Amino acid sequence: MPKTLTYKLIASHLLDGDLEAGKEVCLKINQTLTQDSTGTMVYLQLEALDVDKLATDLSVAYIDHNMLQAGFENADDHAFIQSAAEKYGLIFSKPGGGICHQVHLERFGRPGATLIGSDSHTPTAGGLGSLAIGAGGLDVAVAMAKGFYFLTLPKVYEVYLKGSLKANCNAKDVILTVLQKLSVKGGVGYIMEYTGPGVQNLSVPDRATICNMGAELGATSSIFPSDQVTRDFLRAHHREGDFLELGPDPGASYDARLEIDLSAIEPMVAKPHSPDAVVPVAEIDSLKVDQVAIGSCTNSSYADLMAVAQILKGHRVHPDVSLVISPGSANVLKMLAENGALATMIASGARILESACGPCIGMGQAPKSKGISLRTFNRNFKGRSGTKDAQIYLVSPQTAASSAIKGYLTPGQEVDPSSLSSYDHVNDYFIYPKEKDQRRKDLAMGPNIKPFPLNDPLEDQIQKRVLLKVQDNVTTDDIVPSHAGLLPYRSNIPHLAHYAFTTLVDDFYDRAKKNNGGFILAGDNYGQGSSREHAALVPLYLGVKAVLAKSFARIHRSNLINSGILPLTFADPASYDLVDPEDELLLDNLHEGLAKGQILAFNKTKGLAFSLEFKGSPRELAILLAGGNLNYSKHLEV
Amino acid sequence: MPKTLTYKLIASHLLDGDLEAGKEVCLKINQTLTQDSTGTMVYLQLEALDVDKLATDLSVAYIDHNMLQAGFENADDHAFIQSAAEKYGLIFSKPGGGICHQVHLERFGRPGATLIGSDSHTPTAGGLGSLAIGAGGLDVAVAMAKGFYFLTLPKVYEVYLKGSLKANCNAKDVILTVLQKLSVKGGVGYIMEYTGPGVQNLSVPDRATICNMGAELGATSSIFPSDQVTRDFLRAHHREGDFLELGPDPGASYDARLEIDLSAIEPMVAKPHSPDAVVPVAEIDSLKVDQVAIGSCTNSSYADLMAVAQILKGHRVHPDVSLVISPGSANVLKMLAENGALATMIASGARILESACGPCIGMGQAPKSKGISLRTFNRNFKGRSGTKDAQIYLVSPQTAASSAIKGYLTPGQEVDPSSLSSYDHVNDYFIYPKEKDQRRKDLAMGPNIKPFPLNDPLEDQIQKRVLLKVQDNVTTDDIVPSHAGLLPYRSNIPHLAHYAFTTLVDDFYDRAKKNNGGFILAGDNYGQGSSREHAALVPLYLGVKAVLAKSFARIHRSNLINSGILPLTFADPASYDLVDPEDELLLDNLHEGLAKGQILAFNKTKGLAFSLEFKGSPRELAILLAGGNLNYSKHLEV
Repeated sequence: MPKTLTYKLIASHLLDGDLEAGKEVCLKINQTLTQDSTGTMVYLQLEALDVDKLATDLSVAYIDHNMLQAGFENADDHAFIQSAAEKYGLIFSKPGGGICHQVHLERFGRPGATLIGSDSHTPTAGGLGSLAIGAGGLDVAVAMAKGFYFLTLPKVYEVYLKGSLKANCNAKDVILTVLQKLSVKGGVGYIMEYTGPGVQNLSVPDRATICNMGAELGATSSIFPSDQVTRDFLRAHHREGDFLELGPDPGASYDARLEIDLSAIEPMVAKPHSPDAVVPVAEIDSLKVDQVAIGSCTNSSYADLMAVAQILKGHRVHPDVSLVISPGSANVLKMLAENGALATMIASGARILESACGPCIGMGQAPKSKGISLRTFNRNFKGRSGTKDAQIYLVSPQTAASSAIKGYLTPGQEVDPSSLSSYDHVNDYFIYPKEKDQRRKDLAMGPNIKPFPLNDPLEDQIQKRVLLKVQDNVTTDDIVPSHAGLLPYRSNIPHLAHYAFTTLVDDFYDRAKKNNGGFILAGDNYGQGSSREHAALVPLYLGVKAVLAKSFARIHRSNLINSGILPLTFADPASYDLVDPEDELLLDNLHEGLAKGQILAFNKTKGLAFSLEFKGSPRELAILLAGGNLNYSKHLEV
Repeated sequence: MPKTLTYKLIASHLLDGDLEAGKEVCLKINQTLTQDSTGTMVYLQLEALDVDKLATDLSVAYIDHNMLQAGFENADDHAFIQSAAEKYGLIFSKPGGGICHQVHLERFGRPGATLIGSDSHTPTAGGLGSLAIGAGGLDVAVAMAKGFYFLTLPKVYEVYLKGSLKANCNAKDVILTVLQKLSVKGGVGYIMEYTGPGVQNLSVPDRATICNMGAELGATSSIFPSDQVTRDFLRAHHREGDFLELGPDPGASYDARLEIDLSAIEPMVAKPHSPDAVVPVAEIDSLKVDQVAIGSCTNSSYADLMAVAQILKGHRVHPDVSLVISPGSANVLKMLAENGALATMIASGARILESACGPCIGMGQAPKSKGISLRTFNRNFKGRSGTKDAQIYLVSPQTAASSAIKGYLTPGQEVDPSSLSSYDHVNDYFIYPKEKDQRRKDLAMGPNIKPFPLNDPLEDQIQKRVLLKVQDNVTTDDIVPSHAGLLPYRSNIPHLAHYAFTTLVDDFYDRAKKNNGGFILAGDNYGQGSSREHAALVPLYLGVKAVLAKSFARIHRSNLINSGILPLTFADPASYDLVDPEDELLLDNLHEGLAKGQILAFNKTKGLAFSLEFKGSPRELAILLAGGNLNYSKHLEV
């Protein structure tokens, strides 16, 4: 049966499972990447996995997120990640080298390779024909240690392209158009595969922009074929040897299809506060602009910034506009410095920021109160800019630059495409691995970086007290609060533990310490909200053995299992009322009970019994028995 | 009698007073500058002065401090300052234009002009032969409104220079040598005047570096003669018309003298944690370096950064070093971008930051824990970098760049001097004033910017309760705390008021509100510590009419007077014990009493009386009677 490009790559990397949408498969992973905001935890997990050598072909640790360094924590994280890279043989990309996805595209992305990264925009490398997926930190650590990754197979959505873009349009306008048509839920459960004659009219950076914002469609990944355009890009980046021609089999069938005529695309804009609130720029009349921000992993390539320079040349940024530009990589910045484009930007009155994620992730450049900010980024969620009442619009670099001059939102001007037959490469931000016997043995653990908490294999009987009884809809923000004061402590579970459940009670930490751990009793939808792993790691650290709930939020339930904490539901929800805080519960015969899905609980304090349920896959059961995913994965071979 | 250059400039600007050290004079002010961290308050004060037009020749509002913009407050401050500039006819220098002192030197500083600025490094312009003084925000507002500034005349310290610098040395090594010899107290009560044949061997940016760090000597200002070197500098900056030859009268006598042989200077370093802990670099053996930071108003000129680029060319920043470079102005950045020097820096692995104060004021780039950081800046106080246990060393740009390559502290290499016969100027960061009738009438007051609190003219009788009784050595941090959470509220006195005295009591705000203001009773040395005006403005806002203390810290006493709050001392310190919190006090016949220096206080609650004293100058008395310096200055003509 003819296959889609997506399924061809999955088939060629299949270690275990069947090629059927909705089923779990185990894939061979060729490459991993991390950024620093998630990376510290990933390398703590890698350390806990106690590996001798990496199982991937290539793993890169980038620093691009937390580069403002308002306190010692950021620099300590950088030093820790650098030391982990030197110990385990990763490539380390120093701060200033650029944004992970942009640098990876230029230097390491490879057609046909599988890549997982601890960042949701990892699919950017799909522009090169990589199968690139954003994943949780633990998945990335396991991939480095073991070379595999478990994935529930998505369906494949064909996006058929024809025609070619007008000179005033950018790939950003294409993906904004797709978002307009499909919405931010349109890609959920899918990998977006781009096909058709229009593909050849898009450069690799264009394709990368489109794949990048597939994350905003909710898609698992996005991918383009690898063709002559890909070969030319790789040759210009001095690595034609990485080229591999790739495409779907003729006649492959897809689960869904969208057709886009590139020649009909107009400059588009996503209005506040969603990337799918998309309309043509021309439809918005006289919107005065306070700030324009150009850059991010979506739109910071050489071609994007040359388009900006073309538009700015000889013009002045409007006096009421603050224009900030963050080039995507040191390569891009150096080429702009050498060819006069950077001088043009400076002469126009632009602010040149570091090559980093910067304002896209709220690291600085928060707009003024109620400020109107046009951004070439990928997300415009309310508050993400750092200013709660700011109004963020997502646009192309051309639209951004043209609007910065005029002072109000205006469609991008026409530009000549900029591409080079040979790109400069700056190598001095990379630290390459040494030979194995010359590598450092220790890790640079600043005082804020604490070892990853590990659980023990599950005992067959647990007798503990109920530490806390909570109502429905408790969020991960309740379990472990997150705010500016606590963000620097993401690598410090012992510190975060002091804040556990402080939105609900004052003394959870003391209760847990006094009782040497215990149980949590919860209502419906326990653990909703942010996906942060910390909401399971802190309870793990405090000795929580099981959460007994009416129901769980999906991601938090997975995080509990990964931490070796039992997520059990009441067979009869009324049992919730039979237990009070401080009651002593006995869960007996657990190994057999979990396998059957039925566990009997004895309330020793009240002298009564009730039934609990566990509905999980065999792999989830194995993880719980091992005492969490790290213990499980440590000795797993596929 | 032959005069020093300093006294010649004072004489030519004298509006009132005698030319005698230690006496107060009133000077005509030609220019003012502000930066944004102090500027918001300055323009609130200017607004309260209700001026029609500026009394200065030139006033510039720079944005260079709070440019990280972690929340809306920074951008709101920028917009407010821009609106004030547009309303009152100042030049506004947008964020990205550069560091106030560097830009002022390039574009506006003028030999023979008086300049006051709301930044302690304002004396940088002394490198051009300006008499340039750092002052409080209110002084700058009054200078803009009225054109004058009151100064207690300092003595003059001659620093006699001979010889010329070696090719591996920088003006930074000169001022570090002066600091080594004189200490951080050596300049207190002085203006440093540079003379001798060595002067002609220093460029204007060199001279500016030396004047800049006169602030670290504790000097009121520093000044160089204006000579052919000055003329050449001004010509290269397209404003030879501003040139004026200036020097001391032959035979002028000085109050103190230091002789420096430039040819004997070696690369120097100030060790943690004081700018005067200076030793030759060669004396420090194998100090491994984690971070190198180049820039700041001390060392970010074109010549400084070209020296850095010369040293970096063809080399790689050591893998364990994070090298950050902040060019001093958009002009400098653009020239480096055009001549390849910036590309050289990027190719070596340097991080290029915005043209701003940046890490020098702790705005980002905090080193890692216990990090060793070499910086071309002017201050290495403990904690200023943002990392409490970091070790900061102050060095020249040459030493910084050479050490960044080697990875340990090493003396700067030799470089060829870089100067141009014509400098590029970027104009698009400046917003010049419009014609008076076309100026905006309103101010852009974001929600965090509140009007400056004003007092009323002093009544002859005040009857109020004692709101608080405190012990000795209460600090301005006790009166109004300052930390990361409160710093963004520096322009919001009503918000800060909620935190008044919260280190001592929980309910001061409520007490003040309930009693409609009142008195504070204090021990010795009330108001020690930071000089912040807020420690007087918050009590003013809360209705505090007088502080009755055993003694006052000098600067806080001035701030109280400026706010129209009476700083009264007990004639007999034992009277402190006769008053309790909530006692009702009557201060009667105040106008006459203050003039005589003796005020009788009645404790109505306890039925007893005691004596208070006021020891102030006639001008201070006039300020108190007017209800603060703003009211006093509003109608003052000299």
